[in-house]
Amino acid sequence: MNDLHVIKIGGDITANESLLHAFLQQFAAEPGLKILLHGGGKSATAMAAKMGLPQTLVDGRRITNAATLDIAVMVYAGLINKQIVARLQGQGYNAIGCSGADAGLVKSVRKAVLGWVDYGFAGDIGPEGVNCEQFVRLLELGMLPVLCSITHDGNGQLLNTNADTMAGAIASGLSHHYNVSLTYCFGKKGVLQDPDDDDSIVPVIDAAQYRFLREAGSISEGMIPKLETAFQALSSGVKAVTIRHALNVHPGTRLVSGIQQHTPA
Amino acid sequence: MNDLHVIKIGGDITANESLLHAFLQQFAAEPGLKILLHGGGKSATAMAAKMGLPQTLVDGRRITNAATLDIAVMVYAGLINKQIVARLQGQGYNAIGCSGADAGLVKSVRKAVLGWVDYGFAGDIGPEGVNCEQFVRLLELGMLPVLCSITHDGNGQLLNTNADTMAGAIASGLSHHYNVSLTYCFGKKGVLQDPDDDDSIVPVIDAAQYRFLREAGSISEGMIPKLETAFQALSSGVKAVTIRHALNVHPGTRLVSGIQQHTPA
Repeated sequence: MNDLHVIKIGGDITANESLLHAFLQQFAAEPGLKILLHGGGKSATAMAAKMGLPQTLVDGRRITNAATLDIAVMVYAGLINKQIVARLQGQGYNAIGCSGADAGLVKSVRKAVLGWVDYGFAGDIGPEGVNCEQFVRLLELGMLPVLCSITHDGNGQLLNTNADTMAGAIASGLSHHYNVSLTYCFGKKGVLQDPDDDDSIVPVIDAAQYRFLREAGSISEGMIPKLETAFQALSSGVKAVTIRHALNVHPGTRLVSGIQQHTPA
Repeated sequence: MNDLHVIKIGGDITANESLLHAFLQQFAAEPGLKILLHGGGKSATAMAAKMGLPQTLVDGRRITNAATLDIAVMVYAGLINKQIVARLQGQGYNAIGCSGADAGLVKSVRKAVLGWVDYGFAGDIGPEGVNCEQFVRLLELGMLPVLCSITHDGNGQLLNTNADTMAGAIASGLSHHYNVSLTYCFGKKGVLQDPDDDDSIVPVIDAAQYRFLREAGSISEGMIPKLETAFQALSSGVKAVTIRHALNVHPGTRLVSGIQQHTPA
């Protein structure tokens, strides 16, 4: 099987012109098959503010009413996705920007209402949600898929989807076709023991360490679904999951957090 | 050679929920290879108004500063494109939504400054602008390309492009690979002799008739580039060009304007 690198970049990178530029340079230089995934929450929140629409997040997930869905689609599938694609094309890479609806790549199911929380037009990706055959076709054409975190329900409805879990689902699904590694890139060097100390990277996180860090409060909010997805991806056949700074894309970089199911004795 | 139908829908259709729905039903039911093209000027103007950005059009073309380009990319490549793709997918058609940047499908050159008019981030498509090979690949995979009128310059810059001329350029380019027919769909039944009489359709328009109608004022504004593109497409090998109502997609419909290079004696 060929290697495939699924890389997700955070909204703190896509909203920062110079960081995004530097990341794309590094990303493009990495050899091999790649899929890039992005959301753009920070930019969507800024756009919503410009349009006078207040936003609500519960456990790091956006409550998506119809107007908020429109903003997410415009910002993620439109602005951010096409800017990334145009730049990669400008560097000579045959990028193709897609939402989950395009070519039926990723289908999701509208989130169930849990207690008082109705996430609205938000989608969860089930085990059959990733259309691996279509991903393989695009990769075999030499294309570099750039996915935004918008999916569809298969009945014409677009759904806002968490980009971390979408990256995990794509990596897991494609692990039957490729040796997949999954990388979460953002503006910090990894999972931090002390959120206020940028150098307090936790180098290896297994299930026990995760529980400890969560109870200690080092891991909270958006980092929780990221790590839960990471463990799921590993148990689904993904070879390696790391969390690292967007400017440390190269696999040789040591300043990262590696997620492991079990730490070797 | 196989038949290929390039269909462009106007902004008056994409901005009208029920017309768009009815159009997509008809469009999906037509057999054979198809490419759908859309802009969305009306929706972009509404979005710009919501965000307090005044818009200027010269000869039916939008002056595109950086903020206006962002709106065009968000509305065309994001909102409208993904809604169309999700609906076609919901009807069982393997639609893939693309801008000209995606897979390097359509490249353009920033418009020259003419006199006092600087169109800003607006692109013109040259003869080498359409990447026919990539279109053929997507079509051969059984995909239905849905293109929005955003292109790129090949150096990382997105450019706003007239959807009528983009449809003409794609149809012309692909006429070396397919028997291409090109259809412009909008909210009127065709080119009208009297703009105030919806039934005064001009059934056949050749070059002489075009000059006559233009001098008489029946053809003005956005209809001028549409017809000039139509004549160019015919002289480049496109088999048939018609202008018709979006709910008259079926080729058998008689209530349309057909464009011809020379009217047979």
